[in-house]
Amino acid sequence: MENTTRTIYLDYGAATPLDFRVREAMEPYGDDLFFNPSAAYDEARRVRSDIEGARASIAHLMGARAGNVVFTAGATEANNLAFAAISPDAHAVSDAIEHESVLACLDGRPHTVVGVASDGRVDPRGIASAITPQTELVSVSLANGEIGTVQPIREIAQAVAAERERRLAAGEMRQIRLHTDASQAATALSVNVSSLGVDMMTISAAKMYGPKQVGLLWAADGIALRPLVAGGGQERGIRSGTENVAGIIGFARAFEIAAAERTAEAKRLAKLRDRLSRTLVSAFPEAVVSGPRNPKLRLPGLLHISFPGIEARRLVLMLGRAGVLAATGSACAASKMRISHVLTAIGMDERTAAGSLRMTLGRFTTEDDIDRAASIIIETVRSEYGRVGGLS
Amino acid sequence: MENTTRTIYLDYGAATPLDFRVREAMEPYGDDLFFNPSAAYDEARRVRSDIEGARASIAHLMGARAGNVVFTAGATEANNLAFAAISPDAHAVSDAIEHESVLACLDGRPHTVVGVASDGRVDPRGIASAITPQTELVSVSLANGEIGTVQPIREIAQAVAAERERRLAAGEMRQIRLHTDASQAATALSVNVSSLGVDMMTISAAKMYGPKQVGLLWAADGIALRPLVAGGGQERGIRSGTENVAGIIGFARAFEIAAAERTAEAKRLAKLRDRLSRTLVSAFPEAVVSGPRNPKLRLPGLLHISFPGIEARRLVLMLGRAGVLAATGSACAASKMRISHVLTAIGMDERTAAGSLRMTLGRFTTEDDIDRAASIIIETVRSEYGRVGGLS
Repeated sequence: MENTTRTIYLDYGAATPLDFRVREAMEPYGDDLFFNPSAAYDEARRVRSDIEGARASIAHLMGARAGNVVFTAGATEANNLAFAAISPDAHAVSDAIEHESVLACLDGRPHTVVGVASDGRVDPRGIASAITPQTELVSVSLANGEIGTVQPIREIAQAVAAERERRLAAGEMRQIRLHTDASQAATALSVNVSSLGVDMMTISAAKMYGPKQVGLLWAADGIALRPLVAGGGQERGIRSGTENVAGIIGFARAFEIAAAERTAEAKRLAKLRDRLSRTLVSAFPEAVVSGPRNPKLRLPGLLHISFPGIEARRLVLMLGRAGVLAATGSACAASKMRISHVLTAIGMDERTAAGSLRMTLGRFTTEDDIDRAASIIIETVRSEYGRVGGLS
Repeated sequence: MENTTRTIYLDYGAATPLDFRVREAMEPYGDDLFFNPSAAYDEARRVRSDIEGARASIAHLMGARAGNVVFTAGATEANNLAFAAISPDAHAVSDAIEHESVLACLDGRPHTVVGVASDGRVDPRGIASAITPQTELVSVSLANGEIGTVQPIREIAQAVAAERERRLAAGEMRQIRLHTDASQAATALSVNVSSLGVDMMTISAAKMYGPKQVGLLWAADGIALRPLVAGGGQERGIRSGTENVAGIIGFARAFEIAAAERTAEAKRLAKLRDRLSRTLVSAFPEAVVSGPRNPKLRLPGLLHISFPGIEARRLVLMLGRAGVLAATGSACAASKMRISHVLTAIGMDERTAAGSLRMTLGRFTTEDDIDRAASIIIETVRSEYGRVGGLS
């Protein structure tokens, strides 16, 4: 059927290629500018200054101050750092569809996990009810990476602010902070920390066409971050180890590009995503599309669709061999369960959940890709249904 | 004096440039092979397999099993991970000239810091005396990065083994482990874990012409490493976060090259270093060269020389402007003291210590570089002595 062998990549949510502009920005820092930024000569000071320029540029794009940005080796470490800022026995509130790194940080401390609606939305009133006088941290991602739900962070920030006011009035000294993991959202949504009203934010370069294992935690003034890794005192003592110079430079360039292209790109991807969704749903009326109906409440480039009765892990392999790369769910977990915790939390039955495909479109996805992908998916799903003797 | 403006880099101990062969090996993993290794399709499985190939190759070069290698975001994190393997209240033994990341890990737990001789050597008998029945970790670097002292790790391993035997005979259940930070040594010395007799070893890609913020901790069978960063369960649950694929591939290539070239390169560098040392000492007979006299007990490419009465921080700036990049000491600490803790530990007087220059030669250092550098250094030091009205 296909007369081209070009693979169609629909798994940008798992990994983004390095944008050539990012690569170009990084290259000098392996060669001419490979210096240790802590060295004393002018060449090294230039590198130090370039790192600080990158930090300032990123901070500006978040509406934040550069001094409040800590670079980490990725989003997972940043999430761990956010939780390390509160004492190990303090109560934390989060929701049932968070990334594994957030759920892992809840383990072993007092915590409440709030459920989500069938479209994955966290109810701010649910968060408000879960907050106790002992709560020191609320952590809700800006958008879910598996079904694309954008969370009402501003409203959740209001609930946190209300508790802060209550404590102030009651003379209670305990602090409460709102953390958001914006890793999956930063190419599609504004990540202005002030307008979102958050106290800490995680961002990953690896999801925005930058290098892998580069991320950051932004923390508002007055939050005393506690290092997970101690040593030479880099990153204001919060993250020791010689800086990942090329990675930080690449992160800034990736962030700048993402911010400049965000609005137009989100519109373009939503259109392509809707086109793919319509084609697949009309071919398989029994297919279930997850996430909010309202397009503003969904990540624009994400389509989560379930084919009840199909074994999605096999489907992904078959699609891969036919030239379409997609996911069963989030690829962030190295050891995967058959059924994702996200789908369990939105109340999806096991048979439907097991047939789930997550497709994430990105910067290099074209309309032609989508049309070719749709044909391949329809053919492959039909063949799978034929094999298992199911629907269609 | 110079008719070429090429800068002479003599600070390989602070940072190494990316070898072009390493860069070439890494490049495909930003573009064609950027996939998340946890994804299910064949392309991602190929990436997973390449990571595991890199791990196997590195493990082979350490005489270790691949399953015992955990990739980290650099040596500092690996050192922290080694200390996290023992309980926070267990006693640890280390020495006074360790890297800041090891000294930071001693903080807040029971520990004994053993002094060193004036050449920086740790006496294995000193380690043996510091070990108590409560000691769970001994951490001594394979070679010091500031004055180049190679430590008697095999003899220290024997002291640890003797305590292990004693506990076995006494029916004491507490374990004792020997960790070595080999970051500064791996391009010059064998890092075979069995012949060294260590239980844990840290290696950094950033000191062997590989990428920054890539490192590893090797830990022997039976050591239960405790994650500093939790999440998706990558690296057998010990270091979560999507793998730094390009970084790991680059690390393996860098390690392979370093291992292949190690013997010849160590000989070449020692010869150049001795040439530089002789020239400088004959120009400034009052200069003090630190580290062991025996060339086998010193890192081959390292020359630590002190000019009493000179302010080395100024000297480094002046040298940099004249085209020679060198260090006052280790550049690993972001906030630097005037006098390094290493020089204090070897008993150097403050005036001599403040005039210390560390020069580290590397893969791209030529004989011509050394001769030109020697002239520039002699001229600059003379001019500094003229300015302060000191010796020479």
